[in-house]
Amino acid sequence: MTNIIRFGVSLPADLLKKFDSLCQEKGYNNRSEAIRDLIRDSLVQGERENESQDMAGALTLIYDHHQSSLAQKLTEIQHDALHSIIATLHVHLDHNNCMEVLVLRGAAKEIQNVAQRLIATKGVKHGQLSLTSSGKDLS
Amino acid sequence: MTNIIRFGVSLPADLLKKFDSLCQEKGYNNRSEAIRDLIRDSLVQGERENESQDMAGALTLIYDHHQSSLAQKLTEIQHDALHSIIATLHVHLDHNNCMEVLVLRGAAKEIQNVAQRLIATKGVKHGQLSLTSSGKDLS
Amino acid sequence: MTNIIRFGVSLPADLLKKFDSLCQEKGYNNRSEAIRDLIRDSLVQGERENESQDMAGALTLIYDHHQSSLAQKLTEIQHDALHSIIATLHVHLDHNNCMEVLVLRGAAKEIQNVAQRLIATKGVKHGQLSLTSSGKDLS
Amino acid sequence: MTNIIRFGVSLPADLLKKFDSLCQEKGYNNRSEAIRDLIRDSLVQGERENESQDMAGALTLIYDHHQSSLAQKLTEIQHDALHSIIATLHVHLDHNNCMEVLVLRGAAKEIQNVAQRLIATKGVKHGQLSLTSSGKDLS
Repeated sequence: MTNIIRFGVSLPADLLKKFDSLCQEKGYNNRSEAIRDLIRDSLVQGERENESQDMAGALTLIYDHHQSSLAQKLTEIQHDALHSIIATLHVHLDHNNCMEVLVLRGAAKEIQNVAQRLIATKGVKHGQLSLTSSGKDLS
Repeated sequence: MTNIIRFGVSLPADLLKKFDSLCQEKGYNNRSEAIRDLIRDSLVQGERENESQDMAGALTLIYDHHQSSLAQKLTEIQHDALHSIIATLHVHLDHNNCMEVLVLRGAAKEIQNVAQRLIATKGVKHGQLSLTSSGKDLS
Repeated sequence: MTNIIRFGVSLPADLLKKFDSLCQEKGYNNRSEAIRDLIRDSLVQGERENESQDMAGALTLIYDHHQSSLAQKLTEIQHDALHSIIATLHVHLDHNNCMEVLVLRGAAKEIQNVAQRLIATKGVKHGQLSLTSSGKDLS
Repeated sequence: MTNIIRFGVSLPADLLKKFDSLCQEKGYNNRSEAIRDLIRDSLVQGERENESQDMAGALTLIYDHHQSSLAQKLTEIQHDALHSIIATLHVHLDHNNCMEVLVLRGAAKEIQNVAQRLIATKGVKHGQLSLTSSGKDLS
């Protein structure tokens, strides 16, 4: 069982009114949920700055599958980094463009290194790493 | 066939030396590839600022699957946004934590709205949207 | 007089403990102050996405003052944008390098345009715009 | 004298066309200048990740000067961090709101610590640090 604690926050009325509008706009049911998300965001930001922190990542690669031998090169790099890559999802965006989303797991620095090598591969049009918490240190 | 153009860039020798080190560190085989990536990054940044631009996105959600009825709520929201969600990849991070990566496609603003609703759902520990190009406008 | 409102936030005990550590590390005296900052940050993020929002900005330019006629060019551009620039602070970083910090005020889009023209000027080594609230809409 | 080197970059024609539009929109006179800025940006990004790197920073603080003793508290913190703060520019935004821009110099980590203490001070509505190169390592 998670132990829930309740505490008070004081805020100028104007600020609270603006925050309530923002919560509604973003689809939050109540302030507590929105504030928990702000708090968890600031903790994840702290995790990201710690190179050895165990994290999860989603790496997005956009490329043209007509590029000769690109898919094979990407697969080879992924196999060299087996222990960091959990799974890959492939989507056909249009006749030419593929999107590959890789789920990575490991130390922040390791994930960034694998991502960088894949992004740097010739023929990858755009690559972007989204580094997030592995959830363990967030309740 | 893609038409390749070659043009000259002039740079102070010191700056070039530092850039060459950075390229090597990041795993680029040559300067052209690294410069193409910088250029495409700046174009994708421009796409992101255009609300109606057709884009692709990867949304990462981290949650504890013990949260009662959370998975069902997330599925309902996703079905409401069927036309924006292409596929979902689910990974079991540990005994408690799940990672779900959704691939989204559509206008930048639409993708952000769907992502925001899913992130705001009670029980989602952390959510993060990585908005990238759909590749169409990048060669 | 600002009207202060107090409301309750509920949080898992673990999350609160981690947040308290973060608050201490960042020098906050109490949770309310830290939460107010998170809330104001999220409101300022919203302001930034609104092109016509009245905002304040600090633009940092780093350049070598030996660059012929650079200072004059920067001054000319600034005079063309008189109505957006409130003041400029000049610092001599070392024998070669100058840092100029411009305080800008106006619609988000206008500030970004002026900043972009100054950053693009040949000889400016690095330019960076920090867009923030003008304070009016934050209490 | 700075030694200028010229080298060739090859690019798909479509990509070059889009990049030329972006350069024009941002006010660059030629591609070389725009590419130099992209390169320097990526080097400054690398500097930021190195905690001991000598950097320059501009910290923006927005606050209401009616807050009792706030200005004095901010001054005290600044005097404690004398060696990191070069100069301060104060702007009166409106009847209530002040903007203070501090120019900081030192190791990235030190600058971030001083900034964090000032941002965390009760009464500061919004604080934002813009960490940039000190110019020494950029040509």
